[in-house]
Amino acid sequence: MSLNNNVSIAIAEKPLFLMEHEGAQLLQELGLPVAQSQLVQTKQEAIQFAEKIGYPVVLKGMSRDIVHKTEAGIVKINVQSAEEVEAAFIEIMENASNYNDNAVMAGILVQKMAPKGTELIFGVKKDPVFGHQLVIGFGGIFVEIMKDFAMRMMPVSLEDVEEMLQELKTYPIIKGYRGQEGLNQKVIADICLGLNQLVEQRPEIEELDLNPVIFADQDAFICDVRILLGEKKETEPKRRSLENLEKMINPASIAVVGASANEKKNGGRLFRYLVENQFPGKLYPINPGASEIKGYKAYPNIREVPEEIDLACIIVEAKSVPKVMEDCIAKGVKAVIVYSSGFAEVGEEGKKLQEELLNLAEKGNIRVLGPNSIGIASPSKNIYTAFGAALESKVKPHGNIGFISQSGAMGSALLSRAWEQSAGFSRWVSVGNEADLTTTDFIELLAEDELTKVITVFMEGIKDVKAFEQATAKALDAKKPVLVFKTGRSAVGKRAVQSHTGSIAGDDAVYSTAFQKLDALRISNLDEMIDVSRAFTVQKLPKGNHIGVLTASGGACSVIADLCSEKGLIVPELTESSEIIKELIPPFGNAQNPVDVTAEVIAKPEMFKKVLQTLAEDQEIDGVIVMLTTNADPGAAVIAEAIMEVQRDQDKPIVVGRLGADGIAPKAMELYEKGNLPVYASPERVVSVMNYLVKYSQLLKTK
Amino acid sequence: MSLNNNVSIAIAEKPLFLMEHEGAQLLQELGLPVAQSQLVQTKQEAIQFAEKIGYPVVLKGMSRDIVHKTEAGIVKINVQSAEEVEAAFIEIMENASNYNDNAVMAGILVQKMAPKGTELIFGVKKDPVFGHQLVIGFGGIFVEIMKDFAMRMMPVSLEDVEEMLQELKTYPIIKGYRGQEGLNQKVIADICLGLNQLVEQRPEIEELDLNPVIFADQDAFICDVRILLGEKKETEPKRRSLENLEKMINPASIAVVGASANEKKNGGRLFRYLVENQFPGKLYPINPGASEIKGYKAYPNIREVPEEIDLACIIVEAKSVPKVMEDCIAKGVKAVIVYSSGFAEVGEEGKKLQEELLNLAEKGNIRVLGPNSIGIASPSKNIYTAFGAALESKVKPHGNIGFISQSGAMGSALLSRAWEQSAGFSRWVSVGNEADLTTTDFIELLAEDELTKVITVFMEGIKDVKAFEQATAKALDAKKPVLVFKTGRSAVGKRAVQSHTGSIAGDDAVYSTAFQKLDALRISNLDEMIDVSRAFTVQKLPKGNHIGVLTASGGACSVIADLCSEKGLIVPELTESSEIIKELIPPFGNAQNPVDVTAEVIAKPEMFKKVLQTLAEDQEIDGVIVMLTTNADPGAAVIAEAIMEVQRDQDKPIVVGRLGADGIAPKAMELYEKGNLPVYASPERVVSVMNYLVKYSQLLKTK
Repeated sequence: MSLNNNVSIAIAEKPLFLMEHEGAQLLQELGLPVAQSQLVQTKQEAIQFAEKIGYPVVLKGMSRDIVHKTEAGIVKINVQSAEEVEAAFIEIMENASNYNDNAVMAGILVQKMAPKGTELIFGVKKDPVFGHQLVIGFGGIFVEIMKDFAMRMMPVSLEDVEEMLQELKTYPIIKGYRGQEGLNQKVIADICLGLNQLVEQRPEIEELDLNPVIFADQDAFICDVRILLGEKKETEPKRRSLENLEKMINPASIAVVGASANEKKNGGRLFRYLVENQFPGKLYPINPGASEIKGYKAYPNIREVPEEIDLACIIVEAKSVPKVMEDCIAKGVKAVIVYSSGFAEVGEEGKKLQEELLNLAEKGNIRVLGPNSIGIASPSKNIYTAFGAALESKVKPHGNIGFISQSGAMGSALLSRAWEQSAGFSRWVSVGNEADLTTTDFIELLAEDELTKVITVFMEGIKDVKAFEQATAKALDAKKPVLVFKTGRSAVGKRAVQSHTGSIAGDDAVYSTAFQKLDALRISNLDEMIDVSRAFTVQKLPKGNHIGVLTASGGACSVIADLCSEKGLIVPELTESSEIIKELIPPFGNAQNPVDVTAEVIAKPEMFKKVLQTLAEDQEIDGVIVMLTTNADPGAAVIAEAIMEVQRDQDKPIVVGRLGADGIAPKAMELYEKGNLPVYASPERVVSVMNYLVKYSQLLKTK
Repeated sequence: MSLNNNVSIAIAEKPLFLMEHEGAQLLQELGLPVAQSQLVQTKQEAIQFAEKIGYPVVLKGMSRDIVHKTEAGIVKINVQSAEEVEAAFIEIMENASNYNDNAVMAGILVQKMAPKGTELIFGVKKDPVFGHQLVIGFGGIFVEIMKDFAMRMMPVSLEDVEEMLQELKTYPIIKGYRGQEGLNQKVIADICLGLNQLVEQRPEIEELDLNPVIFADQDAFICDVRILLGEKKETEPKRRSLENLEKMINPASIAVVGASANEKKNGGRLFRYLVENQFPGKLYPINPGASEIKGYKAYPNIREVPEEIDLACIIVEAKSVPKVMEDCIAKGVKAVIVYSSGFAEVGEEGKKLQEELLNLAEKGNIRVLGPNSIGIASPSKNIYTAFGAALESKVKPHGNIGFISQSGAMGSALLSRAWEQSAGFSRWVSVGNEADLTTTDFIELLAEDELTKVITVFMEGIKDVKAFEQATAKALDAKKPVLVFKTGRSAVGKRAVQSHTGSIAGDDAVYSTAFQKLDALRISNLDEMIDVSRAFTVQKLPKGNHIGVLTASGGACSVIADLCSEKGLIVPELTESSEIIKELIPPFGNAQNPVDVTAEVIAKPEMFKKVLQTLAEDQEIDGVIVMLTTNADPGAAVIAEAIMEVQRDQDKPIVVGRLGADGIAPKAMELYEKGNLPVYASPERVVSVMNYLVKYSQLLKTK
């Protein structure tokens, strides 16, 4: 046991917990309200400093070798006099020695004891993908037990801090509650902005806990500082320009390496899909064993194709891919899709093969989609450089959803299901292993793609947050929502949790806050991914969250009102409109919002249109939900026409639900389909769709 | 201002707040740990009592005319000496006078001041339907701000109390946390059981707050008691025997009063549905203007029908219904369905008409469904005493779901949608205005109905909780789940909130706890009502919550694992099975749970069956979720057969999802339909269905 304060923060090996006085010093330099303190080496110094700042004080033994100070018995609080200081000093040195005889003591920290007050905790955690995250929680054991905390990607803005505080369940206490004075929010903001600065200066900070920070009267006291430093190296992921990608998504000529006449082979199916769907450019099957495939002249090697090739589709055994890549380099091909599996997804050997592929791509300045990709489909251009059973679908409606999937199987299944529901895609992309081109690259690409109105992503994770931010910013500029369904929510974090903040900033929570910061809307339910995506391609955006509800049943009114209330959508009371509606509907209906026109709509479907028009024209209403119940033809068809006519004249969204079976209203369903108006089968879906429209509209407003 | 302690609790007019000393007395009589106290009239008495119990004490002015004591300044805490008692006494009398000069003071309560400790709040609220509800919350402002409370219908059992505590987010504090001693749970239980007794003795208690109850060391101190008494009268709702109902649901002869040849009229449609669906008994159209309808001899009046009539369907104008009821009495009809609207749902006049109808029904000992009912359908018996557009459906599959709806429109729409999804009903009942027969009556009836395996309810509310309890108990005995979708969740409570407990025990929360106590499973999502109902008619029940997951995609594995984790379903690690599965699937698959057999299943669908069998036979697995992705024919059909074969031999549920479009697997879909195995279109639905199966299985176990 020895005292030695000759420890420099800068040279510490990593990872490393800073001692409290070292951390406190960093904060002090930024002007943050660390409780007044000094590191001392002797009892005399301790008493001297305690007398200077006044009792009571706290004494804490400082040793890099003892992380858990309380457990070691080297913290003494409420020390009231010189004698007590001396006794505490001795006891701390003894306890430290008993706890760990080899521990090197840097000294003892004498600290002004903070008054009683409200405790908050501030924390920082560095996420491997999203960088530093700021956490604010309500103090003491409550942050752990009540899970009352808010998180944001750093740097945080003043608005972020305000939002975070408002997110806390304990916000009423922070704001001031029942005559109790609130906390000094200016100081809270100062601490947050100071932490912004700190992590900018010291990006190697892995974790930081200020726990507690005591707020009393209008003052704040940072009473404990724990900082964990990690490795300094920040490898900026390299990004390549997206210049050749036009040729990948809109190729004028395609060579299919591995094309086959045998349709049991993937290469056979891929080539068939291209041909059957009438690819409008030039097609070159490459197969050394064939002279022609499906009427197209075949070549033994891509080098031998006499004309220029925009895109090479490589669908051969994994081990043959490098050879094909070399041929592509020789031929001057700039874009390839590698469908072959057997790369990084199958283990070490595959990883090496993937690296080889990537090296060749860089050497030839070739952009690669895949390997292990199912490809790209662009229905309205008749370009199907994709395989997978979804392409067997008889209907392949065109549309404006740009879809990117990190799971080929899920992406393909969703494609088939969407088509069956008449939802059309502009681009459908399976990114496979993302050896070169990533989900993020395609978000950026689709942000500029004129066919695409909404970008929807099935995501397992991202690697380069700066690129993602840039891509979503482009999408926002283009007013194209980026909708993300993220899986792996329950995955246990890989890194051991080393601090308090670490344990509450789980991987999934980090993604959620990041999506919020980076202007992507998270889709919580795979079930509604297609519904919501399609809605953005056909609906106008609501100006606010005041929703008019129109049904023909009291039960439906009640269900929709419940759901709106749960989502935070307002169903406002009507004023003049209600008077007008009252004249239109039977007396046992409800002329107030939610409006119930009653089953009389079956006998008088024309009445429905007038009510809908009145509701949609109401200045207080930002969007209308129509929830139909059984609604059979012929009345259903009249109502379908009415809805689409009113919708045409309005700059508000009208979202339609129909609980009754499609089969009892075939004419109506045909009209909706012709009019490209999606109809949702349940109240939950209708309200959820409206809620996403409102959310995105609010997002646009804040920019 | 005067002192007067001559107030009897018994004679108080209602509603009435008891003064604290009155409430404390009630609790003391039950042996509950009320902080030691005495009501005094003079300073001397106050000092005498304070000296006796020891300082510090609390003084509180007691007046029925001052409810908000702190606001009035008539509470003095931490009173430390005789002088302070005197001063406090004087100040309280003065403040009371200033606050309300007319206030009658019953005296001043001198109370032992409780030590510092952990505060809990206990509350009771009487719900107009469900009776007394017990609330336990974590103390002080936290119960309001953090909404950390648990609620149960009273009387509560010891198990209820234990569950309630475990539900609290602050349970770790109650239990003892990080070396901190927990609270005395025996005392908590005593208080709860004491409150059971109290509300049994005094059913007129409307609201009760014990706030706070301070727990320090192993003692507890009830420091404040607020009791609101309401009216004593308890009108026991009268219930009639269900003896005639067999004739209503399985009639051998039906008279349709208001039958018509004109199918634009409801009476015309109702009669057509009976005829078209080949009602197997005798049919008598009643219409004074017709001699026959659709080949059946018509009678001008039900009295003139020569044979016995089991059921009269009344579908005439509301105002003519009483006359028809008189005819039914004369004819001796014992069961009628009144379809006519224009009764209680349209206002005062209609209410009178409904009363008249009910009086006639009682006079003639007739059971009535409706008025304003859409009727009853029993598909497998070919009895369609119902109208509504749903009956236009071409497919009307038979099945074992007994469905009861308080909303005709929603019920009818759900019927059509369910049929379209191949979900079959045993009984479909629209209860209309419930003038006589209620939802509850039909739950009881279906509990005994041999055609019905599950009872599903679309509910707006119930009135008679004892009857409901009796009905669900019968259903539980018969092992038939009662599934309830309850709407009106967001409805603002009608009664003014008069106390703390009142504000947190919202109507909807009361329904939730009541359903739990009364063994009904609440369906949170209308979207999944049919899915879940049907599952109970075809699936075996899992013995526990350990789920095996089988997919052909890593993405699907991840999505299902997320959802299972959110619902609390365990996806356990496999031991021996994993070794067996490893031999069956490709090396880049996942032989651990969740199992990924990879896209190789397309080429080798037979491999799938072996894996499924292995998983289903694993002793550690209680049920299997199969989540398929694109899954096209012909492989899809092989897999469908495999699933149904394995399922036949197992006593575990196998719940199947298919994300890919139905259209690419028509053969498989046909097989599933023939095998009566529902297939769900999304991961969310699959997991939700399994979760309900697990929940019901757990419910059965606790009985």
